[in-house]
Amino acid sequence: MNNPDAALAEMERAIDDLGATGVQIFTNVNGRPLDRPEYQPIFARMAERRLPIWMHPARPATVADYAGESRSKYDLWWAFGWPYETSVAMGRLVFSGVFDRHPGLVIITHHLGAMIPFCEGRIGGGLDQLGARSDDPDDGAALGGLKRRPIDYFRMFYGDTALFGAWHAMESGLAFFGADHVLFGTDFPFDPEKGPGFIRDTIAAMERMRSSDLDKAKIYEGNARRLLRLKLG
Amino acid sequence: MNNPDAALAEMERAIDDLGATGVQIFTNVNGRPLDRPEYQPIFARMAERRLPIWMHPARPATVADYAGESRSKYDLWWAFGWPYETSVAMGRLVFSGVFDRHPGLVIITHHLGAMIPFCEGRIGGGLDQLGARSDDPDDGAALGGLKRRPIDYFRMFYGDTALFGAWHAMESGLAFFGADHVLFGTDFPFDPEKGPGFIRDTIAAMERMRSSDLDKAKIYEGNARRLLRLKLG
Repeated sequence: MNNPDAALAEMERAIDDLGATGVQIFTNVNGRPLDRPEYQPIFARMAERRLPIWMHPARPATVADYAGESRSKYDLWWAFGWPYETSVAMGRLVFSGVFDRHPGLVIITHHLGAMIPFCEGRIGGGLDQLGARSDDPDDGAALGGLKRRPIDYFRMFYGDTALFGAWHAMESGLAFFGADHVLFGTDFPFDPEKGPGFIRDTIAAMERMRSSDLDKAKIYEGNARRLLRLKLG
Repeated sequence: MNNPDAALAEMERAIDDLGATGVQIFTNVNGRPLDRPEYQPIFARMAERRLPIWMHPARPATVADYAGESRSKYDLWWAFGWPYETSVAMGRLVFSGVFDRHPGLVIITHHLGAMIPFCEGRIGGGLDQLGARSDDPDDGAALGGLKRRPIDYFRMFYGDTALFGAWHAMESGLAFFGADHVLFGTDFPFDPEKGPGFIRDTIAAMERMRSSDLDKAKIYEGNARRLLRLKLG
């Protein structure tokens, strides 16, 4: 991503020559936001290819939480900083107009949309008032440049179920995104058992989650078949 | 809070002379974290008085989200920065051992625990491994100094229902904290109608939320009567 032209070439090679069904990016590029003009061709190309982009958080402990400190303590940069980073990246993409340019673009966010479902109320009525809290004219201008309400674009993202067994959070994410925008994922193999633990916990949460069998079938399998355009025998 | 001795005196005056049923603090003190030793007497005193502390987020647009920028754009400092700030403050208090020193301390977090309910899985198994991701010996030492798992302390906080109508997030918060730790709140008067809109939306979410009438009665009224030690006629 630090060389967008090379990234485009590698995407093509991965998809056409190696059979990749999508690409993964991180929520920033060496600390730069994804809404910079040089990254627009990446989103345009994946929309054109009709394949998903997975978006994974990236944020180190050196992003301090308090002005007088040199690092984030107690893994809070990871526990809460990663979902914050994902949410900000989503917000920046929304206000860059990427979904107005590419309404069919599929971006699958890790951890079921990070902070977005729980913050639905803040995003909804809150970001409708963008510009009222700020003296930066860019804010109001960004809102005015969009065709729809900000919250409508946040619903255009997809999310995976990698919430490590938090069944009530999975219900919240499902209520926000809808069953067509949620895909089964576990964060395998990053648990103390090197994978089986998160798979087991996520399946248990899927079973406990209050939703229809049809919706669960979409999450387990149907959405991946559709979005990754899998052709199975 | 920039003068803890004066804060203690004012707390006493507010409670004893003016009838205050608790005090509000912000999630940082001029950018300093709440786990600094000089603030410990505040928490000790409120635990001793058996009255709640409300904790409200504080974070300005000047906390930039990307290294090359001077401010957070599009109100993201508010939409997501405030819940992040609340969550980090909660984490810092947890690892400072405040709940081991004062198991009965009541801290009511704004917006139903901010990121905590949705991140239950990250906090649970994730922070149990504190020290494994870090080369800072303070991290592992902090974990070792606690009597219980980190997640157990996060459940000792309380939360209000000020989620602006996001009923599924209220269900998630209720599942995480339990009905004895959730209090009705609306963020009145910060909606375009100056109050009635958020009250109406929050009551609608309370009614839609799947939980028992007994639990809803606790949230609407019972918990406030108990925690604020209200003596009504």
